[in-house]
Amino acid sequence: MAIADETDLTTYCLQTAEKALAASRVLATVSGQAKNDWLRASAAALRESSDAIAEANARDIANATGYGLTDAQIDRLRLTEDRVEGIASALEQIAMFPDPIGETIDSTVRPNGLSIQKIRVPLGVVFFIYESRPNVTADAAAICVKSGNAVILRGGKEAIHSSQAIVQILQEQAAQFGIPKDALQLVSTTDRAAVGHFLKLNQFIDVAIPRGGEGLIRRVSEEATMPVIKHFDGNCHVYVDQAADLEMAVRVTINSKCHRYGVCNAAESLVVHEAVAEKFLPMIATALAEKGVEIRGDEATCKMLKSAVPATEQDFGEEYLGPIISVKIVADIDQAIAHINRYSSKHTESIITESLAASRKFTTQIDSSAVMVNASTRFNDGGEFGLGAEIGISTDKFHARGPCGIEALTSYKYIVMGDGHVRS
Amino acid sequence: MAIADETDLTTYCLQTAEKALAASRVLATVSGQAKNDWLRASAAALRESSDAIAEANARDIANATGYGLTDAQIDRLRLTEDRVEGIASALEQIAMFPDPIGETIDSTVRPNGLSIQKIRVPLGVVFFIYESRPNVTADAAAICVKSGNAVILRGGKEAIHSSQAIVQILQEQAAQFGIPKDALQLVSTTDRAAVGHFLKLNQFIDVAIPRGGEGLIRRVSEEATMPVIKHFDGNCHVYVDQAADLEMAVRVTINSKCHRYGVCNAAESLVVHEAVAEKFLPMIATALAEKGVEIRGDEATCKMLKSAVPATEQDFGEEYLGPIISVKIVADIDQAIAHINRYSSKHTESIITESLAASRKFTTQIDSSAVMVNASTRFNDGGEFGLGAEIGISTDKFHARGPCGIEALTSYKYIVMGDGHVRS
Repeated sequence: MAIADETDLTTYCLQTAEKALAASRVLATVSGQAKNDWLRASAAALRESSDAIAEANARDIANATGYGLTDAQIDRLRLTEDRVEGIASALEQIAMFPDPIGETIDSTVRPNGLSIQKIRVPLGVVFFIYESRPNVTADAAAICVKSGNAVILRGGKEAIHSSQAIVQILQEQAAQFGIPKDALQLVSTTDRAAVGHFLKLNQFIDVAIPRGGEGLIRRVSEEATMPVIKHFDGNCHVYVDQAADLEMAVRVTINSKCHRYGVCNAAESLVVHEAVAEKFLPMIATALAEKGVEIRGDEATCKMLKSAVPATEQDFGEEYLGPIISVKIVADIDQAIAHINRYSSKHTESIITESLAASRKFTTQIDSSAVMVNASTRFNDGGEFGLGAEIGISTDKFHARGPCGIEALTSYKYIVMGDGHVRS
Repeated sequence: MAIADETDLTTYCLQTAEKALAASRVLATVSGQAKNDWLRASAAALRESSDAIAEANARDIANATGYGLTDAQIDRLRLTEDRVEGIASALEQIAMFPDPIGETIDSTVRPNGLSIQKIRVPLGVVFFIYESRPNVTADAAAICVKSGNAVILRGGKEAIHSSQAIVQILQEQAAQFGIPKDALQLVSTTDRAAVGHFLKLNQFIDVAIPRGGEGLIRRVSEEATMPVIKHFDGNCHVYVDQAADLEMAVRVTINSKCHRYGVCNAAESLVVHEAVAEKFLPMIATALAEKGVEIRGDEATCKMLKSAVPATEQDFGEEYLGPIISVKIVADIDQAIAHINRYSSKHTESIITESLAASRKFTTQIDSSAVMVNASTRFNDGGEFGLGAEIGISTDKFHARGPCGIEALTSYKYIVMGDGHVRS
């Protein structure tokens, strides 16, 4: 899979992108029925090919220790029969979603009789850069093709053999449904320089979507010449209002913080109204202690909780991705909103309150992709939102925000019908 | 208006952007009623201040020759009483549009009872860089504030005094409606370096919108660290199909090409089906000759038309913005589509045909922001589309495409309501 030299690599990337653009032009005309039939045929083929997939996966597993993967990472890499079944049924679920392409988003007839329709179209070509879990390869190919986009898949080297096996199976099913093989291409080199080459090719690629660690995402954002759908991190907050049901506040905080530590929609910071702090802090401290979570509190928190460690300024901006939470006490909801808008990643924030006024103020003024009322931050997720597969979560406000499903991979065009209309 | 040195300029730009962000936070909570009242009060104030505006405008006109402006450019710069009335009534028209902010774009209740709403919100802070016409200053301020965005206006130096007078009047009306003065700031220095400083400030500015010559737009696109709404140029095509009404084809082609030469939605290229070329070309050649438009044709065109000049490869990609048109003869509609998708700016293309099949094929396969059927390319315009004021036209597929009105300046967020929901 190594490519001889830099010139060859540049040519390889250019040709891959050119093939993707050509395939996207054909794919834009493929019917929803054909795309869904392809997804179902691919699911069946994956089930029938579980031996071939297992063999490819075994090669990745054999290399994993050499790549320095932890046991947990190796486990995520492993494709059991159950997991292949999971991949296959995910494709079948995507097939059940309505086809987005050609949908009339808006329409109007102008006073002069011109009829104007706003029609949903694919973005074109997606460059998807992601980490090692091989199920992501199938998911991303499915969601891109379903939305009429050609995709260039750049998966982690750790899963390269598994991903190749999966893409080959999906490609083999494509031709019979009029889908060009090049609509889904897996980058065949693991050379890191390839990413840089693709990021320059904005005449072919319409969007880059990096998914992985913050370092990868920063690199892609800086180098990309095309738009990027991304989030850097998730410093998510739970705010316990004066009018909170404190039992609920404990339950939601614990779920937001402890359900899974390493995910972007986990809570990293707790903001508490001073009117309930004295009652609430001991309750949450006990619950967090049971889970082994360390509290880093501001001065007021540390006065009330012996167990709290003093927080530095940096703590309030930190995405711990582990069993630590920062705690800040505020005088009122305005202070809470100001604190959160200053330190959050604009990912997910939740208010716990029984007050309608407080919930309206919080949801209006908090500037984040998802604002929760009396619900765990963990619900900011494409699956939980009912969007089907998710290609990523965006904390930007441009184009797509929050969990990005099929619609985030589409654009629109205007179709204007006249009878020889000219402008006067 | 000169700022002493580079450090001062950096500080000035930073402070302007910080003030804009702070103002945008307040503006996001201002009611639609208050914004509309502000627009109407500003219209009245502009009418009452026509003397002050005329005085400021006279200073710009006095400087115009020194800046090397042509007579036509000086005319566009001039603010007559009629034009001030035009600016005022444009503000009143924007006031009549529904408020976009807070609109529920989509909503769902999940099986677990969580209710999820997708709510329209402002983008935040807009950096708008534009040419010298002073009416654009009022239009842009109005459309940005109406959509809940703070705007940093960077107008051309040629209109700086007129723009300052207008912005001051609009700012004076702001406070009584709870709109922060800093929601609309005119950059007070004409130093070109200021643009570069603003383009670095993506922690404050959510989108940059350049409007002007291709050089300005390329510079902004290259330097901007935030998303950009833009089009570089408009190489728009009219395709005369085999099944065209040829009289209509002449009418629409002449309107598309000759209605105004210097605009981005003017036609620059004519593509003709070979089955009608022999009949159509002499018709259109006569009509174009009457307007003094030069034809640059491919080989087949030159054989049929003595008056045609041979086109080079470059001609087919050219935006003439003047009385020249390129002509290409094709064997079928597929060739026409391939030619257009290759050379067009993805701005506006029109097919002239009586065939339903041809119109469906053309509108599906042409990859441009607006695809016309039997209508002039000149209709790709915010006003003609009924969008109200237009901040620009986008030929990108990301975020907003085609004419960009109020909606193009908005994003959305998810509001999720639960009853203490936690994820299992």
